[in-house]
Amino acid sequence: MSNHNLFEPEETHHFRGGFSYAEDDTKQLPRSFLVVKLSPNIPENTLLWLVDKIRGERAEGGAELLVMKQPYNKKEGVVLHISASMIKFLLVAEEMDMMKQDIFSDMNELENFQSKDVHIDDLLTVTERQNIVKHELENIRASPKDTSIPGYPNIELYEGQSIIHVCLKANIVKQIYPLHDKESLKKLGASWYLSLLNKQPFDEIREYFGEAVSMYFSFLGYYTFALLLPMTLGFVQLLVSAETVPFFCVVNVIWATVFLELWKRKSNELAFKWGTIGMTSLDEPRPNFYGHMGKDHVTGRLQPQYPRYKTNVKMYLVSIPIVFLCMIGAFIMMLASFWIEDLIRNVDSEWTPTLLLVPSVLYTALVYIVNVYYRKLATWLTEWENHRTQSQFDRHRVTKLVLFEFVNNFMALFYIAFYIQDMEMLRSQVATMLIILQAINHVQEAIIPLIVKLSTTKMVQYNLLGSDKNKRRDSHQSICSSYEPLHEIAEIHKDDSRIQEAEEEGMMEDYEGTYDDYLEMFIQFGYVVLFSSVYPLAAFWAVFNNVLEIRADAFKLCVVYQRPMGKRVKDIGAWQRCFEILGALAIMTNCGLLCLSPQMKTYAPDYSTEKWFMLFVFLEHLLIGIRYLIHIAIADKPEWVRMELARKAHESRKALKSERAKKSRRTNFSRRFKTVHGPHRH
Amino acid sequence: MSNHNLFEPEETHHFRGGFSYAEDDTKQLPRSFLVVKLSPNIPENTLLWLVDKIRGERAEGGAELLVMKQPYNKKEGVVLHISASMIKFLLVAEEMDMMKQDIFSDMNELENFQSKDVHIDDLLTVTERQNIVKHELENIRASPKDTSIPGYPNIELYEGQSIIHVCLKANIVKQIYPLHDKESLKKLGASWYLSLLNKQPFDEIREYFGEAVSMYFSFLGYYTFALLLPMTLGFVQLLVSAETVPFFCVVNVIWATVFLELWKRKSNELAFKWGTIGMTSLDEPRPNFYGHMGKDHVTGRLQPQYPRYKTNVKMYLVSIPIVFLCMIGAFIMMLASFWIEDLIRNVDSEWTPTLLLVPSVLYTALVYIVNVYYRKLATWLTEWENHRTQSQFDRHRVTKLVLFEFVNNFMALFYIAFYIQDMEMLRSQVATMLIILQAINHVQEAIIPLIVKLSTTKMVQYNLLGSDKNKRRDSHQSICSSYEPLHEIAEIHKDDSRIQEAEEEGMMEDYEGTYDDYLEMFIQFGYVVLFSSVYPLAAFWAVFNNVLEIRADAFKLCVVYQRPMGKRVKDIGAWQRCFEILGALAIMTNCGLLCLSPQMKTYAPDYSTEKWFMLFVFLEHLLIGIRYLIHIAIADKPEWVRMELARKAHESRKALKSERAKKSRRTNFSRRFKTVHGPHRH
Repeated sequence: MSNHNLFEPEETHHFRGGFSYAEDDTKQLPRSFLVVKLSPNIPENTLLWLVDKIRGERAEGGAELLVMKQPYNKKEGVVLHISASMIKFLLVAEEMDMMKQDIFSDMNELENFQSKDVHIDDLLTVTERQNIVKHELENIRASPKDTSIPGYPNIELYEGQSIIHVCLKANIVKQIYPLHDKESLKKLGASWYLSLLNKQPFDEIREYFGEAVSMYFSFLGYYTFALLLPMTLGFVQLLVSAETVPFFCVVNVIWATVFLELWKRKSNELAFKWGTIGMTSLDEPRPNFYGHMGKDHVTGRLQPQYPRYKTNVKMYLVSIPIVFLCMIGAFIMMLASFWIEDLIRNVDSEWTPTLLLVPSVLYTALVYIVNVYYRKLATWLTEWENHRTQSQFDRHRVTKLVLFEFVNNFMALFYIAFYIQDMEMLRSQVATMLIILQAINHVQEAIIPLIVKLSTTKMVQYNLLGSDKNKRRDSHQSICSSYEPLHEIAEIHKDDSRIQEAEEEGMMEDYEGTYDDYLEMFIQFGYVVLFSSVYPLAAFWAVFNNVLEIRADAFKLCVVYQRPMGKRVKDIGAWQRCFEILGALAIMTNCGLLCLSPQMKTYAPDYSTEKWFMLFVFLEHLLIGIRYLIHIAIADKPEWVRMELARKAHESRKALKSERAKKSRRTNFSRRFKTVHGPHRH
Repeated sequence: MSNHNLFEPEETHHFRGGFSYAEDDTKQLPRSFLVVKLSPNIPENTLLWLVDKIRGERAEGGAELLVMKQPYNKKEGVVLHISASMIKFLLVAEEMDMMKQDIFSDMNELENFQSKDVHIDDLLTVTERQNIVKHELENIRASPKDTSIPGYPNIELYEGQSIIHVCLKANIVKQIYPLHDKESLKKLGASWYLSLLNKQPFDEIREYFGEAVSMYFSFLGYYTFALLLPMTLGFVQLLVSAETVPFFCVVNVIWATVFLELWKRKSNELAFKWGTIGMTSLDEPRPNFYGHMGKDHVTGRLQPQYPRYKTNVKMYLVSIPIVFLCMIGAFIMMLASFWIEDLIRNVDSEWTPTLLLVPSVLYTALVYIVNVYYRKLATWLTEWENHRTQSQFDRHRVTKLVLFEFVNNFMALFYIAFYIQDMEMLRSQVATMLIILQAINHVQEAIIPLIVKLSTTKMVQYNLLGSDKNKRRDSHQSICSSYEPLHEIAEIHKDDSRIQEAEEEGMMEDYEGTYDDYLEMFIQFGYVVLFSSVYPLAAFWAVFNNVLEIRADAFKLCVVYQRPMGKRVKDIGAWQRCFEILGALAIMTNCGLLCLSPQMKTYAPDYSTEKWFMLFVFLEHLLIGIRYLIHIAIADKPEWVRMELARKAHESRKALKSERAKKSRRTNFSRRFKTVHGPHRH
């Protein structure tokens, strides 16, 4: 029984009866929520210090989590599995502001769920529990005593810093990831990427992957559905005469505005259902947020404090100028490739056609390389700006990245459309991108990683089954000898499937969030709305691609990648604004294309340039006006959501009032009485 | 003592000791908060029914207010003074959702105000108490038994209708108005319109006139202060060369955007301080809101319910088309006046110069007349749309009116600037408006009404002192005879100053709200930002006018008008958007004026029309972009307001949670226990 104490903190003992997994703990260890892989050459004292922090009591700066270890393997190093007691989950869920609403709405219907016989253990989904464990792990913050990491005197710590993040950066902790849940995954996959016609199972996606991923797929589904209108219009446009082009162009621009406004509504609806609608930039800070520890103005808890103006100064004086310089650099790169192409074209040689490919291939390669570095720069800058919440961080990072990507992806088209004014070239560019590049993307995103994954799985199995067996037997002996300090930690049995899973999934690719997926949609949306008037089939190819994309992304998430940590979001973040800006630019480009297109000019050959300009200005202002009206007319939140929010706010205010009334009645009754009957000024 | 029972409801008796005014009620009647003038020929049963409603118990549909009467005077009819008991004020203040926040923040600092020895009676300002009395009076709603007004079988009532508003419409009640508070008014005036250099006393204004008026003066002050920048720039522009005009033009446009964004911040700050920031369209309905009585989704109280979609249908299918037709009509009227002027100009006669004035004079007169009818139409349409809250009603009414006023005030200038393209004419128009028309406005607004007022006051005094004295003695006898039913109501002593005040103020003009004042600023702002590039002195004249305007408006409110009812607002309503639209239009007009101006053309005579167009498009897009960035960069609410709101929301949520936890612990403990220890699914 002494073993038991080691992974269950003292104060939860009296609850033990409630948790079936703890009933016979020598046979059945608690479920692993996170796997923590440590560096193989971690010094002993560092290891001990870290494990102490994870298991230690809160009062002493620990996280009070349960720790298990895998049988030791010298090559791999120490692999820890982290879990928590049931009561810990509930306590932290209560504490985390971000979770409250959610649990709340469950509590709200307490009667309801009790009658359905839902056990209190099932209140939290596995994803939520993973988040809780991660939250606690990340919130192990350096105390004033921790000036540096034991064993690494060079790595200094300051008060309030997240220790795990320092360890990750210093490569003391190699990886932290949750394990997949094979059974749920199979069920999810069957109703998702394996079914072509059904609606996506958004609730299950949310339960398994968290709100951010579910929001992405909701957006993707909604967007694809909305695309059916411009797709139909595109086909019609091909059939009718060119004189109607302005009509389609106007409709397309309006479609983009309406779609984005409706999506905003939809996302608010989802956020309300998911209990994330109340998220603000004043929520609990993300782990990497730094500042001196102080009392939070909102919650009164001890949290890092960092003045907002400093972030603003860094942003406006440093980050934005740097981003602009990078954009200008990218623009010059693009121009250079066109110039070189022009130079080559003018050389009269039999090699010219072949040579003509060189600049664009070089440019593509260069963009790819520069992008890798720019991404690092953007992440570093955003980290340095020190935004408080994860949503803010993501928003500012995405904004920086998108600005750059915009130059890389669209500037060439703007150049072709409005400087060279070659409509044929523009059309072929748009078509190439939408058909070929998207196909390449699918291969790159889903098929290649799948092959890689299958081969690594085989390798792992081979390792585990084959020659590795002996090694493991060796290593098993060595735990006691070389990692004596860990002897008190419960060890997962060597035949436990979790060990193989941890090894396999540790080798899988890390899902870096929804950024790349949204970016793809962003670029596609740009092609569809910015240049729809020259290539009416754009929407069709977008739909075709997206139907595949939904399956490919789903497949990739379920099968190819490590299980991502759930991330709570209330909307698509910076992307909403990015898409809206594209929608606004579409007004300009479409009006411009219309007035420049030679096709239109043949229908009104007597129009002077001046008249075309006036037409452009008139059409553009009309569309800007319509856009503004649509923006006003469509409310951001559906009426029922506003009503429910108002009801909740009203109830809360009432509760606070009655609480205060009770309190003041208790403490101030005599004073109050005196005041009512005392003299009064007038 | 029997007299006392008549104006103080039963249930408040035990609180009597606390209210000094009730101590000797035969001598000292409670303060009058509202004066209700009834029609002189009101039938006896109507009068009784109405008084019963005002004094009756809530359970029977009454308002539980205190009623006093003036000595009867046949010519004047019955004049009632309405008040309420102290406990009633506190109860209603608690009940009115709109007041809660306010009282709340006082309660918040209960300790604080007790130590400062503020009596509980002083918790509510006089304006707030007037609002409470008005709220209760307006919320006397027809019960199912009241099918028509007694004595007026033709005036039908339906359940839930506001009786007082029906009576006002049917002229059964002639006037309802609060009385001025001479002493406070004198103090307020001294620090407001009589002091030229001090800051306006916004807190005192708010206390006396309510939030809406204080918000208007805050806006006016803020706007005038902001104008100092374009004023300075205007002077500089006069001195330097014309080549710099584009620079000033760009700066002016940016100034307008920044000013409006900063004002939004400022108004949120004020709204937070005033406790109105939480106002939404789901607040308590205004008295004229109709619908079947039902349980409110937010508060659970019985309130009229009217589906939002019906309002939307009425708005989009009827009101908006009508407003557009009216705008087109106004536009045609404007064109016609120009055409006629042109026609006359072509006639070669000695009368031509004189005749040339005819169309514009006619047009001005016509606009004035049409405006009166349009205003009625807009009010009627907005009433018919049936918006729930007063703020919504005001917003939609203002929007309708402003659209029409926009055509009347600015279309002619657009026509001159972009169709006739006569910059000299434009300049003189702008200057005329800013200098002469504003001066006329001052005279019309403050000086004429003052003269009227002074003469009426004299008349009233003459009436009261002179021949009327005998009459009054007569009338005093007739109370008992002709108005027997009212004998039980406390009568104000004939020498009480309130009688003269009620008579005087009843004859004063009714302040119809801030609409006209904002409209003046709107038009001025339009002249300043839309055409600033042709007339750099515009801002100077605007500042000059506004410094006078503040005093004139203040004087007018304090001296000329009836005391207005306080109105709670959280911002300047539709005006924010209206001003913003002007700001956006300013981009277009200024860029257009720049590219058209002959002055600019002399500096680049070799530019083709095409080039000028390109310059226009480029400059315009640049400014639109900058505007958007400014809009993003300036947060709507200051950080500290966001923080305070988040803190309140957090506290409320916590209170609700603990309340629920307590409740569920009490009722469900056994069940809960069972669940924790029972079997659970997995």
